[in-house]
Amino acid sequence: MATIAPTTSSTALADLVPRLREICGEDGVLTDLSRRRVYESDGLTYHRATPGVVVLPTTTGQVAAVVSLCAEHGVPYVPRGAGTGLSAGALPHAEGVLLVTSRMRRIVEIDLENECAVVEPGVVNLDITRAVAPHGYYYAPDPSSQQVCSVGGNVAENSGGAHCLKYGFTAGHVRGLEIVTPSGEVVELGGKATGAHGYDLIGAFIGSEGTLGVATRITVSLTRSPERTVTLLSAFTSMDAGGEAVGAIIAAGVLPSAIEMMDALAIEAAEAAVACDYPAGAAAVLVVELDGPASEVDAQVERVVALCARSGAFETRTADGPEERALIWKGRKSAFAAVGRISPAYIVQDGVVPRTALGEVLGRIAALSAESGIRVANVFHAGDGNLHPLVLFDDSEPGAWERAEEVSGAILDLCVEHGGSITGEHGVGVDKACKMPRMFGEADLETFELFRRALNPAGIANPGKLLPTPRLCGERPGVRTGVHPLVESGEAEQF
Amino acid sequence: MATIAPTTSSTALADLVPRLREICGEDGVLTDLSRRRVYESDGLTYHRATPGVVVLPTTTGQVAAVVSLCAEHGVPYVPRGAGTGLSAGALPHAEGVLLVTSRMRRIVEIDLENECAVVEPGVVNLDITRAVAPHGYYYAPDPSSQQVCSVGGNVAENSGGAHCLKYGFTAGHVRGLEIVTPSGEVVELGGKATGAHGYDLIGAFIGSEGTLGVATRITVSLTRSPERTVTLLSAFTSMDAGGEAVGAIIAAGVLPSAIEMMDALAIEAAEAAVACDYPAGAAAVLVVELDGPASEVDAQVERVVALCARSGAFETRTADGPEERALIWKGRKSAFAAVGRISPAYIVQDGVVPRTALGEVLGRIAALSAESGIRVANVFHAGDGNLHPLVLFDDSEPGAWERAEEVSGAILDLCVEHGGSITGEHGVGVDKACKMPRMFGEADLETFELFRRALNPAGIANPGKLLPTPRLCGERPGVRTGVHPLVESGEAEQF
Repeated sequence: MATIAPTTSSTALADLVPRLREICGEDGVLTDLSRRRVYESDGLTYHRATPGVVVLPTTTGQVAAVVSLCAEHGVPYVPRGAGTGLSAGALPHAEGVLLVTSRMRRIVEIDLENECAVVEPGVVNLDITRAVAPHGYYYAPDPSSQQVCSVGGNVAENSGGAHCLKYGFTAGHVRGLEIVTPSGEVVELGGKATGAHGYDLIGAFIGSEGTLGVATRITVSLTRSPERTVTLLSAFTSMDAGGEAVGAIIAAGVLPSAIEMMDALAIEAAEAAVACDYPAGAAAVLVVELDGPASEVDAQVERVVALCARSGAFETRTADGPEERALIWKGRKSAFAAVGRISPAYIVQDGVVPRTALGEVLGRIAALSAESGIRVANVFHAGDGNLHPLVLFDDSEPGAWERAEEVSGAILDLCVEHGGSITGEHGVGVDKACKMPRMFGEADLETFELFRRALNPAGIANPGKLLPTPRLCGERPGVRTGVHPLVESGEAEQF
Repeated sequence: MATIAPTTSSTALADLVPRLREICGEDGVLTDLSRRRVYESDGLTYHRATPGVVVLPTTTGQVAAVVSLCAEHGVPYVPRGAGTGLSAGALPHAEGVLLVTSRMRRIVEIDLENECAVVEPGVVNLDITRAVAPHGYYYAPDPSSQQVCSVGGNVAENSGGAHCLKYGFTAGHVRGLEIVTPSGEVVELGGKATGAHGYDLIGAFIGSEGTLGVATRITVSLTRSPERTVTLLSAFTSMDAGGEAVGAIIAAGVLPSAIEMMDALAIEAAEAAVACDYPAGAAAVLVVELDGPASEVDAQVERVVALCARSGAFETRTADGPEERALIWKGRKSAFAAVGRISPAYIVQDGVVPRTALGEVLGRIAALSAESGIRVANVFHAGDGNLHPLVLFDDSEPGAWERAEEVSGAILDLCVEHGGSITGEHGVGVDKACKMPRMFGEADLETFELFRRALNPAGIANPGKLLPTPRLCGERPGVRTGVHPLVESGEAEQF
């Protein structure tokens, strides 16, 4: 497979600046180093680069003009939403344009009759729900960063969240896209009505991390708010017992909106940070959320409580008021930030295994941890087998990062070995591009490459992301703090 | 946009036959004219062509070898499942290979723990449900041809069915594909585990009508059989009142598994054919099916009955036993074949409108019918706005087909005008390839073309389907009976 790696000189870029200003206006183009540096990474701060120039377009026309200009001059560009991604999918190009969509934040239309909304890419995920909640609707995909992340970024990364188990990823909630292709053309994919027609490129575009273009308008499905939501917290004396309960719930035909699992180390961290008061002595807890019509939810709660007990739960709490529910979620949601209290640094891994392989893989992770002496905390979406192991290390200790990275990489290998995936919901970006061959054969990767080249022939759209660039694979990133400043402060919950 | 239209000489094809026999065996290659003629059309018999040669591979390796041979010699090939499609997507190429998957009909694996099955492309849709029903599961996509159509064909056309409203199209139920690309490579897309990784080409492949390759192994999701299913038949004195009821049901937050609607002409035809005993004097009937947990379904039935009454229903019947339910469905399912009783010939159109535009579009169709003097019967999936107008004509009358075609085409224009689509579930095939520009702009079609060329650069994979081939657009098909022999005999219910 050949390499796509456009390069451009800073001079070429400097020549474009006056034309970028004509397109986006004076305040829509940032050239000062200090202002450009703000954008040097997304949520994965291992990887950093200062963008050559930053543009902040406000319309589709401006995006198309910027991209056309880049195409004309062979200048790479990187699209960026709110910058909360966790795979360096929005890592800037030092000699390229960073195209930030944060000023495109209009909710263009709310169409309740057709149960959809049309939004610009910079709209914050939760703002859709805020706008439609009074009418009894919400926007279902809920990455933990939903208070700050943008819908455009969600489209680029096919973002999921705790409630994916029942409601699916972003791809399941987007009906239509207006995109600007890497040649600067404006193309419509899909629309309000359902039905197949032409190639359904929406699915392929969603999760393409900006390598196929920029979404400038997004038609999303709205979901009815459930009549009742109940959250359960169930405590077990072993991870195995918790895993057994997960299997039993699904096998019984109950489909919770979320099943989250935490191990003892994660519980310890959460307890230390937010005093969430989870049952003492738990080696594993499950957070199970059930939503839907009241009568049905009530019946399911009874079943889940019984199934957890049968799998060995020593305590199960049930909460149906918003405050009680928030209390249960508090421990789960704070767990990532909380790990900072018990370890100076950590790597968050993101992998998937078929749900039935969870027990086996968790056992192997525990063995890996024991062998290497590196602690691993597990907080994850158990229902859909989306693991988020936290590999703890001390970044002041020489070689510690490397050893942690090795364990973290071995966990991904385990996922692939068991028929899973190297990423569940954080995307590939720069971070995992080199790991794609662990999962895909040469023919698979060539097919991806053919597809990328079809829409992005010059390779100027977000180069180096998603697919391996052989020249770059093998190199290690320079900066390794591993923790996003927002995560450290507990403001973001991106997992 | 440039044309992709490979041609080959019969001589070139004849030279390949010995090699095809080496690959597929003696009985896997058909060259006799009489045997080839069997495959001259799919369910849309307007379009006919005798394939140059027919191959019946039994393994992925054979498919890959056949396709590689075609690629090597620039010979076009057309994949075909059970041949029940309704857009001439499997129309053979007279100088090409017809690659029939009907001998690849193994259910490779049923994995109940992961709620999926792995099947070969020739497996009959309903056979998946038959295999898993004893375990409390079924395969949700239910084209009316499900007793005979193949899963591979369903993937090629992204087939839907009456229960798409709640359960979605084929694309929503396929987790993984093994495909043979037009260059003969075997590529894996997706798998059992959920999660985004690489380009999600599954969605783009599903509905690509064989232009991007052949699916040789398909991993489908299994759905839990609902605890209760209730079917309602509600009769109205006007289509408007029926349409109002549809809107009211959805607005109330009830999501039936199906909402089907029939107008007076369709009811008359069904009554004449199968004596379904629908309420006398109905100008419109709705068939509404509700499924799910018993307690929830019971509550929903009450609501739907009340909402229909409020919209003016003069009678609503409720059926929860399998025989009573079948009786209600009998009229609906026989309607297409039944129309043959009241008209010598007819065209089945397939278009989509946003549900909220249904009333307006049905009114315009009635006006079109009145102006042209051509009768149009309406039987359709009202819940998701998927219209199936039956345009009736007398094929013995000169010019009648042309006038019917004009009305049929005008109906599609109405769909597009109202933000809908030129096809809901029958696909584009040859039949609607020339109509794609009514719906897509030049940039959109160029994007599709770029994508097709990426995977199918020589254009040998199912040429002339899905995208317009300018040279061919404007010509009319030669044969115009309009009715599939199976439909005439009432054996197939493909709508």
